[in-house]
Formats: sequence, C-alpha cells, structure tokens
Amino acid sequence: MFKRVAVIGPGLIGGSLGLALRKRNLAETVVGIGRRRESLDEALSVGAIDKAVLDPAQGVQGTDLVVLATPISAFPDLMAAIAGAIPPEAILMDVASSKVRVVEIVSSALGERPDVAYIPTHPMAGSEQRGPLAASADLFQGSICIITPLTNTFPESKGRITRMWTALGAHVVSMTPQAHDRAVARVSHMPHLAAAAILAVLDEADTALCGKGLLDTTRVASGSPDMWMDICKTNRENIYEALVEYLNLLKELADSFGGGNLGRLRAVLEASKEKRDRLIAKRQGANWRQQS
Amino acid sequence: MFKRVAVIGPGLIGGSLGLALRKRNLAETVVGIGRRRESLDEALSVGAIDKAVLDPAQGVQGTDLVVLATPISAFPDLMAAIAGAIPPEAILMDVASSKVRVVEIVSSALGERPDVAYIPTHPMAGSEQRGPLAASADLFQGSICIITPLTNTFPESKGRITRMWTALGAHVVSMTPQAHDRAVARVSHMPHLAAAAILAVLDEADTALCGKGLLDTTRVASGSPDMWMDICKTNRENIYEALVEYLNLLKELADSFGGGNLGRLRAVLEASKEKRDRLIAKRQGANWRQQS
Repeated sequence: MFKRVAVIGPGLIGGSLGLALRKRNLAETVVGIGRRRESLDEALSVGAIDKAVLDPAQGVQGTDLVVLATPISAFPDLMAAIAGAIPPEAILMDVASSKVRVVEIVSSALGERPDVAYIPTHPMAGSEQRGPLAASADLFQGSICIITPLTNTFPESKGRITRMWTALGAHVVSMTPQAHDRAVARVSHMPHLAAAAILAVLDEADTALCGKGLLDTTRVASGSPDMWMDICKTNRENIYEALVEYLNLLKELADSFGGGNLGRLRAVLEASKEKRDRLIAKRQGANWRQQS
Repeated sequence: MFKRVAVIGPGLIGGSLGLALRKRNLAETVVGIGRRRESLDEALSVGAIDKAVLDPAQGVQGTDLVVLATPISAFPDLMAAIAGAIPPEAILMDVASSKVRVVEIVSSALGERPDVAYIPTHPMAGSEQRGPLAASADLFQGSICIITPLTNTFPESKGRITRMWTALGAHVVSMTPQAHDRAVARVSHMPHLAAAAILAVLDEADTALCGKGLLDTTRVASGSPDMWMDICKTNRENIYEALVEYLNLLKELADSFGGGNLGRLRAVLEASKEKRDRLIAKRQGANWRQQS
C-alpha cells in the first residue's frame, strides 16, 4: 500500500501504527523520526520502525506517507522543518486528538505545497501508557478512527488513508473538524477531566481504601499531562461547554441528595446503565475486522 | 474454620464468598438462601453453595456463620424473619456497602439476641456484573475488606471474621461505621455517581464515537441501579458532601477553561496522574496473599 512511511514520534500511537503496517505488509519501509535516540532505539527494538532518523527533513525524504504522531505542541516547529522537504504527491497525515486548530497549523505551514495531500485523522485508540514499548500491532483493532478531510480535496488520498485504517481493524468515520472537536470534547476530553478531578479531591486516607472500581474509573488519569494540556488548549471552547453540561447535571444530583429526593438519581442511574450496556453489546457485535 | 455457613443472597458477592470458603475448605457446608429458585440453582451449578433453601429461618438452622449478602433494602424483612432463628453463639455478618444505617437496622432487630455476635463488614470487591454466574473464588484476592465491629463486643468473633477475610486474600482494615461511611462516600460512592453522570450527558451521536477510555471510565455505571439506590439512600449525607467537593473542583476547572487560564488544570492533571501511578505501584507491590 505504501513504499516508505515516515512516522514522526513513534510512541504509543505512532509505534503501534508502524508495527501494524509492517505486520500486515502495508509498508515496505517504516522510518522513525524522533528527537531522542533512546526512544528511537526502543521503537527499533520492538519492530515498530525499520530505520531511525533524528532530522525530520532528512527522514521524510523518499516517503509516500508522512505521519505526524508527536504531541500537538511540537507541530508548528515540525511543520516548519518538513514543509519544504515532503516529496511531491506524498500524503501527510496527523493522528492528533483535536482537529480544528491542528488543521489550521498544518494547512498554513503547507501553504506553498498544494501538491501534498493532507488528511487529518484521529484514531480513537490508545491507553494511559506512553512510548514505543507500550505499542501494539493490534491497538487499532475494533477502534474508531475519525477522519476530517478538507472539503473535496485529494479524494484518492482520502480513499487510501481510509483503506489503510480499515485494514488495521478500525471503523472509519468521516466528519468536519468542527463536528469532530465538539463530539470528542463530549465523549473523550470532558470524561478525562471528570476522571482526573475525582482523584484530585481524594486524600491519602481515602485512596488507601481504593478498590478496582476507582482504578478503572480513573485509568485515563494516568495519561500524560503534557499531551492532555495540548488537547485542552486546542479544544478549549468545546470542552468548556461539555464541562458546564456535566456540572449542571451533577449539581442537580447533589441538590437531590441535599434535599432528600432521590428520584432524579434513579433516572440517571437507570439511563446510564442502559446506555453502557448497549455500548458493550454493540462493541461485542461489531465486526470491524480486517477486510481480506 | 466454620461448620455450616448460611449465605443469604448468593449473588456476585455472596456467591464468591461461598466459592472461596468451599475452595479453601474453610466451611464444611455452605447453605444458600434466596427468594428465587432459579438463582439458587445457578449458585448450586457453579459450586457456590452445597444446599439451597428458600425459607430464611429454616436456612439458618444449625449454622455457625450467617452472611447477609442481599441488597440493603431487604435487610429489615430478612432480620425480622431470622432474628429468632439464628443459633445461639453464631456469628452474623453483613457485606453491605454502607454501614451506619445497616448497623442500626441489624442491631435493633437483634435486640433480644445478645448471644449473637454481629460483625459488620464491607469487602471492597465486586464488579458491574451481578448474580452467581459472575461469582469467583478469587474475587477478594488483593482487595480491601473494611470491618466496623461494635465497640468492645465479641473480640473472639471479630478475630475469626478477620482471619476468614485474610484467608480469602483480603487486607482487613478496621474502623467505626461513621468513618467507613465518610471514606467510602469519597472513594467509591461519589466516583460511581460521577461516572454515571458522564454517560447521562452523552447522546447517541456522542456514544457512537466511544472508545476504550470511556468504557473503562464508566464501567461501574453498568452496576445495578437498585443496589446503588440502596447505597445512596443509606449514605446520603456523606455522598452529598463528597459530591459538593467534587463539584467545586470541576467548577474551578470549567472557569479556567472559560477564562482561558489553564494553570489550575495542569496542576490537577499532574497531581491526579501522580496519585494514580502511586496507587498502581502500591497495588502491584502489595502482598495480600493467603497466609498458609
């Protein structure tokens, strides 16, 4: 499918992409590009990349797909370094968790390169862990990958990227960057903050009694604060709106506890159980397997 | 350790207790008591109980340990039925998730039975699943079990119950019912409501994009609404206080998003990650294994 793929930032997501592409023979060569030699050596050792290059402009030479898989805050400098070096007709893809601001950064850096097909994507997979040692060739199996292609541009490249994510086991959904950021603020970013805030109000005496429930509820809070700050900064308004909606419901619940009328609580518990049970059933019934 | 144990309500927790006691030869016979024949048959089929009895007063005959493992709302009727039937010198233990109100209900029903040793316990294990088919002999391995013994009464029975939970792999912590209810409201009950409320604000278009993170964050929300209503009703004031504290922190965070200053957010993300990583490391280092 691709001859030479450059993964800039072969950590959990970038490294898993490299592993998955190599395992399925969808890339002849995967070049890992990173700032730290140790991290690239780890990516080499787990088989996520074939070659390691420290200089981004050099690393993208001869590639037909370039993947931006670093934290968003590194995008401006990276794009400045590679915008002139990406080969003609190559595809540029990012895997960032927010899209409107990221599309602005990348598109403006690509201003002089109308021949490069930029396809923004967001594979909704991952874990609270980081780095190439946590990478897995099956990370995207059964996951959702949102792509937010720029209007009517590069339909052929969009098709290739869609086929690639599908081949890696993802269910591909296409939407505008604006719709993406609003939906993901609700289904991922706000829940992340809600989970982190639970731990923040607990002291040592509380957490000494922590059970498996709390560990699962707050699993995502072990994620990288730097990465999450990047996400929050670039999707601030949508997350604010989702947080306010969540706050209003919690306030209703707290009021019902204070007032002694728990009718509203029962409705919330029942609706949430029904929603989650349905999600689990749907996941188990889903067939997002590799199309052979 | 025990000759004949009656488990009233051999579902997830009661059934796991039966399985664990039988597997470790800590009970010669486990009698399951329940209202529904089908449920008792399931408990028999998985080996959680040796005998099934529908009538509580009859089921507790000849036992030296009686376990209350039904939802709390069944306690008043159950206690009325068994208070006179529990054998002299037997131990009565409950496994409910709130304690002050439960201790009141059970103690007042036991008013005429000063010979019965009542030891309230709360094994902090379980899952979002229910019923004997979800029971496991290892459910309590590595978990915390809080016991809230009544002051200075029945030290020998307290010792036996402590040794029993320890033998099942739990780390036993002793505290007053009041301290229990306050701590558990913070570390378990409030987080449960926070998780349920996340799902409650999401609509179908949002949850269509649900990833593994959200499924984990909201896992507990698949728990039984009836059971959680019982818990919330019997620990209302403490949960209210914990919810208000959580709300105040979330409001600070939302304000920082609204105002564009995300400094407070970074502090919360970093503190929460550090707390959870420490909890995970402590769990992995803990040695709450069965003492041989």
